[in-house]
Amino acid sequence: MRIGILCSGGDAPGMNPVIRSVVRSASSLGHEVVGIRRGFRGLIAGDFMNLSSRDVGGILDRGGTIILSSREERFKSLEFRETAYRNIERAGIEAMIVLGGEGTFKGAQIIAEESGLPVIGVPCTIDNDIGCTEYCIGYDTALRNAVDAIDKIRDTASSHERIFVVEVMGRNRGFIAVEAGLATGAELILVPEEKFPKERIPEEIIKAKEMGKLHFIIVMAEGYGKAEELKQFLFESVGNRYGEIRATVLGHLQRGGSPTHTDRIMGMKFGEVAVEALLSGERKGFVAYKRGKFYIEDFQRAGEPKEIDWEALRLSRRLNL
Amino acid sequence: MRIGILCSGGDAPGMNPVIRSVVRSASSLGHEVVGIRRGFRGLIAGDFMNLSSRDVGGILDRGGTIILSSREERFKSLEFRETAYRNIERAGIEAMIVLGGEGTFKGAQIIAEESGLPVIGVPCTIDNDIGCTEYCIGYDTALRNAVDAIDKIRDTASSHERIFVVEVMGRNRGFIAVEAGLATGAELILVPEEKFPKERIPEEIIKAKEMGKLHFIIVMAEGYGKAEELKQFLFESVGNRYGEIRATVLGHLQRGGSPTHTDRIMGMKFGEVAVEALLSGERKGFVAYKRGKFYIEDFQRAGEPKEIDWEALRLSRRLNL
Amino acid sequence: MRIGILCSGGDAPGMNPVIRSVVRSASSLGHEVVGIRRGFRGLIAGDFMNLSSRDVGGILDRGGTIILSSREERFKSLEFRETAYRNIERAGIEAMIVLGGEGTFKGAQIIAEESGLPVIGVPCTIDNDIGCTEYCIGYDTALRNAVDAIDKIRDTASSHERIFVVEVMGRNRGFIAVEAGLATGAELILVPEEKFPKERIPEEIIKAKEMGKLHFIIVMAEGYGKAEELKQFLFESVGNRYGEIRATVLGHLQRGGSPTHTDRIMGMKFGEVAVEALLSGERKGFVAYKRGKFYIEDFQRAGEPKEIDWEALRLSRRLNL
Amino acid sequence: MRIGILCSGGDAPGMNPVIRSVVRSASSLGHEVVGIRRGFRGLIAGDFMNLSSRDVGGILDRGGTIILSSREERFKSLEFRETAYRNIERAGIEAMIVLGGEGTFKGAQIIAEESGLPVIGVPCTIDNDIGCTEYCIGYDTALRNAVDAIDKIRDTASSHERIFVVEVMGRNRGFIAVEAGLATGAELILVPEEKFPKERIPEEIIKAKEMGKLHFIIVMAEGYGKAEELKQFLFESVGNRYGEIRATVLGHLQRGGSPTHTDRIMGMKFGEVAVEALLSGERKGFVAYKRGKFYIEDFQRAGEPKEIDWEALRLSRRLNL
Repeated sequence: MRIGILCSGGDAPGMNPVIRSVVRSASSLGHEVVGIRRGFRGLIAGDFMNLSSRDVGGILDRGGTIILSSREERFKSLEFRETAYRNIERAGIEAMIVLGGEGTFKGAQIIAEESGLPVIGVPCTIDNDIGCTEYCIGYDTALRNAVDAIDKIRDTASSHERIFVVEVMGRNRGFIAVEAGLATGAELILVPEEKFPKERIPEEIIKAKEMGKLHFIIVMAEGYGKAEELKQFLFESVGNRYGEIRATVLGHLQRGGSPTHTDRIMGMKFGEVAVEALLSGERKGFVAYKRGKFYIEDFQRAGEPKEIDWEALRLSRRLNL
Repeated sequence: MRIGILCSGGDAPGMNPVIRSVVRSASSLGHEVVGIRRGFRGLIAGDFMNLSSRDVGGILDRGGTIILSSREERFKSLEFRETAYRNIERAGIEAMIVLGGEGTFKGAQIIAEESGLPVIGVPCTIDNDIGCTEYCIGYDTALRNAVDAIDKIRDTASSHERIFVVEVMGRNRGFIAVEAGLATGAELILVPEEKFPKERIPEEIIKAKEMGKLHFIIVMAEGYGKAEELKQFLFESVGNRYGEIRATVLGHLQRGGSPTHTDRIMGMKFGEVAVEALLSGERKGFVAYKRGKFYIEDFQRAGEPKEIDWEALRLSRRLNL
Repeated sequence: MRIGILCSGGDAPGMNPVIRSVVRSASSLGHEVVGIRRGFRGLIAGDFMNLSSRDVGGILDRGGTIILSSREERFKSLEFRETAYRNIERAGIEAMIVLGGEGTFKGAQIIAEESGLPVIGVPCTIDNDIGCTEYCIGYDTALRNAVDAIDKIRDTASSHERIFVVEVMGRNRGFIAVEAGLATGAELILVPEEKFPKERIPEEIIKAKEMGKLHFIIVMAEGYGKAEELKQFLFESVGNRYGEIRATVLGHLQRGGSPTHTDRIMGMKFGEVAVEALLSGERKGFVAYKRGKFYIEDFQRAGEPKEIDWEALRLSRRLNL
Repeated sequence: MRIGILCSGGDAPGMNPVIRSVVRSASSLGHEVVGIRRGFRGLIAGDFMNLSSRDVGGILDRGGTIILSSREERFKSLEFRETAYRNIERAGIEAMIVLGGEGTFKGAQIIAEESGLPVIGVPCTIDNDIGCTEYCIGYDTALRNAVDAIDKIRDTASSHERIFVVEVMGRNRGFIAVEAGLATGAELILVPEEKFPKERIPEEIIKAKEMGKLHFIIVMAEGYGKAEELKQFLFESVGNRYGEIRATVLGHLQRGGSPTHTDRIMGMKFGEVAVEALLSGERKGFVAYKRGKFYIEDFQRAGEPKEIDWEALRLSRRLNL
């Protein structure tokens, strides 16, 4: 079998381990892998490269993705998709593995349905917000990056007894905020899932200061609000009475860096499961991980809501303040 | 309630987050915590210190344990244990939380049975080898440390096209070896659980060199053998024909460093569960984690065999060579 | 002699090694050290703490400053300074060591002149912009932090073939921008010292893309401009033709983290020199480092312009594009 | 001009930045670079590869060397050297840049003298022990690695109140030992340059314990002795009275990892200077760095003794105990 592989949407650390695993699993079983560069854009452009076991040597510890990624709006148009299908056929690609998030999986499903090609998705997003799977590749590394950065910010926050608003990634879900906040002992965690009234924040600050805390760190998911706006609001509420207020947006550094052992290992497992699903005749769906097991889930269930660790959020309120 | 807490045996990164969680969970519910310094040795010596919520500020990201640990043989003698019980009574300690591994839990069980004091264990060991619980505090950080070190060794192994034997911790179980080996793309993983015949290693080396691999890294659990001895054996078998052979023992650096977010978060959860178990009337047992849930397990089951991730070992053979 | 020590202005990683060195150098020679909390604010408030050799154990690898820092406007008023002098006298402080930047040294000079107390400054600022000294404590760690963050950003920039504007610290001087930019292979470095016309940036981007570069990373000192504004300007000039444009501000994480070996060692040396200067009768000035030697420099020379490494900037243009 | 480049002897982090700089500096001035794989071994084998500016993209942050290194005894034989010279001529190589230490420079000098080819050396060794140059590529990264590892070991040493012997690299010189020891607050530093009598170590341990130190860390250069032997000696002298004694050899991990900003920047500067030296007609010698300036030094002076930072050693005795 000749398997095409692509990455689409936001890159996630751990995509390279997945690619390596797909190539070597397929290769060890006598199959071939073709890398499609820049996701759906490369499908339309016919930008393909053969990937041998040697080509994926030395990428296990590399962030990003060696086959590049992109967001490609043109794939929504049937005309461009038909070009893509012709390219797939011409390249002799008989099945596909796509790495990405919910939006990517929508494209994957359309390919499977329109072209009849078997297509398996691998959930990759640092936001960890794909439904039905307990883990999405990239999340653990993003958490490490956020925790490293917040640990550093705490040093300066303590020395100056400041209030810090740290905005982390998570547009719809507060996964990074909750776990990075708990892990760094953040005094307050704000997530889009919970409508914590910002009017209550000043009293939390006062409480912490009365307890003798030198700093007050708020870890906020971008889905809750903008760091600069919350800083402004706090300044208008309490001024500098309880310490100067600073805002910082961690931004894209959360996406990079060498994948953690968890993202490497999970990436390798997800990749092998994807190959084996194709070989065992699966037609479409994404690899999901639940209670220690991998299975193939319907593409449309990727959009189902996924709950943050509410217990962690509750625990943070008990321990960190 | 007045709760005593101690660490015993090998220290594990994440013990401080457990201590912080125990102190703050107890404190938030109106209870007190007394730190017992140096484990059972401190029990015998009556070396106690009160721990307030403030005392455990700033320790979340610190390796080791602020209340120190030790291995104390004297606790096997009833005479010394009776001294310990008197100290416990004198200090008004009404229940205990002990952090450590299987040996520690044996001591904990004896205390519970002889003194009638409720005692709850928290599984802490970088070897991850305590029965019945999927996770032991310290393991994730030890893995990070091993992976960081092996990534570095691979740089020099590649540049010189060498064969490296890297000995990692794991006396009875190969947990670190398997996962660190898989995560670093080690060409061979050797664990005590599997009697991989060392006579077969030379052919593995030859196979890898024929595939064009620049280096050959063997990650070996200390329970399988000694790095220097395996190096010697390999030298006698293949000489320097396939690259110079080097041996390195990662050693104690695996135990240190700032705990990863996983060890911090798990440590905080384990700590709270331990406190709540005492408050709900549990008399003895250790906190176990299985399929996303925490519960109290019998102390003697800590010694039950725990399986390494055999799938990971198999996967490593498929992908890394 | 009883020596007071304080930190003022922005904190810098390496202040703790300086404090430890001052305390232990003084102590080993039979003198005492008093920590003044929160800089000049603590002088006014009389917020002092004795610092013994044991008190500064375990702080060598800690970011920030254990005696806290602040910016205190009230010290510009004679009334508050006189309160400070009374506090100094009452506490039996006979000499002072102050850690900070140019602004801090102005305060130090006033103390020396008004009170007659010997005062020695230690140059601490991540911006590395104090005149006459080749090194300022905190700079090496800030560089490490910036380089780590930009390395991560490059992973995602490459995967998406994006243009990134990364704003680093440096209000008046481009030290961090030049060295972090060179070290990360940034395609363009923008510093306040050089009026690189932003109108020329689009042609640089085009040139890089024609050379086959996947990404284009601009490392910009905050003294050159705002990341968001440059992103906007670039978007208006070239749109997304050469890749999507992103802006990120590294912010306060540059200040934190465990000091590098360079900041620890230099911190220890600076600290000892400060103590010995006081003991040898120096009345005022700051410790400067030039060509491998330490000496005491006039406070007012701290404000003299200090040149960035223009050779590094030139080299970056040759190698990174 | 067509320039050959090779690495020989122990690899050093920062070799890749040197290679990148040589290739891009030469290329920007209209010259070509040929990579010689595996050092002198590749010269003999004629194992060459063209290196374009694109070929050295993405290697700035990579440890090791992309053109590989080796120790090659055959180069001592004229017969093999003549093969090498024929290969050089056949490949049209007109000048050479060699990266390595003293031994490598001896080979370089012979090439220059026998073949008449201009040859410039770049000092690369983590031991930092090449005469006449204040800096050798790889040293800063090796220090970072050693300090990171010792910081981790200190966590467990403190928790168990142990005595640790940590052996670091440095066969003839104690550079890493002195600076890593000072930077980590090691209680004792042992270097080959100073005959610190091991009989005096027990009293140092006792002194530290009396001062209330929890641990006692000895950082020892391999040139002073073997960790295991010192551990044995100490055990025979003081037993476990002052804490259990442990020995650890940091080993090859010191050589790996992403080069620090210092090694990247210095590597780039050294590389450019080497190219410019060839272009300006230099016939032989190595790039040396002294007091902020680069110049070409005679090959034979590489073997001159180079002094460790005795001031740092003295300071460590004052501050760390």
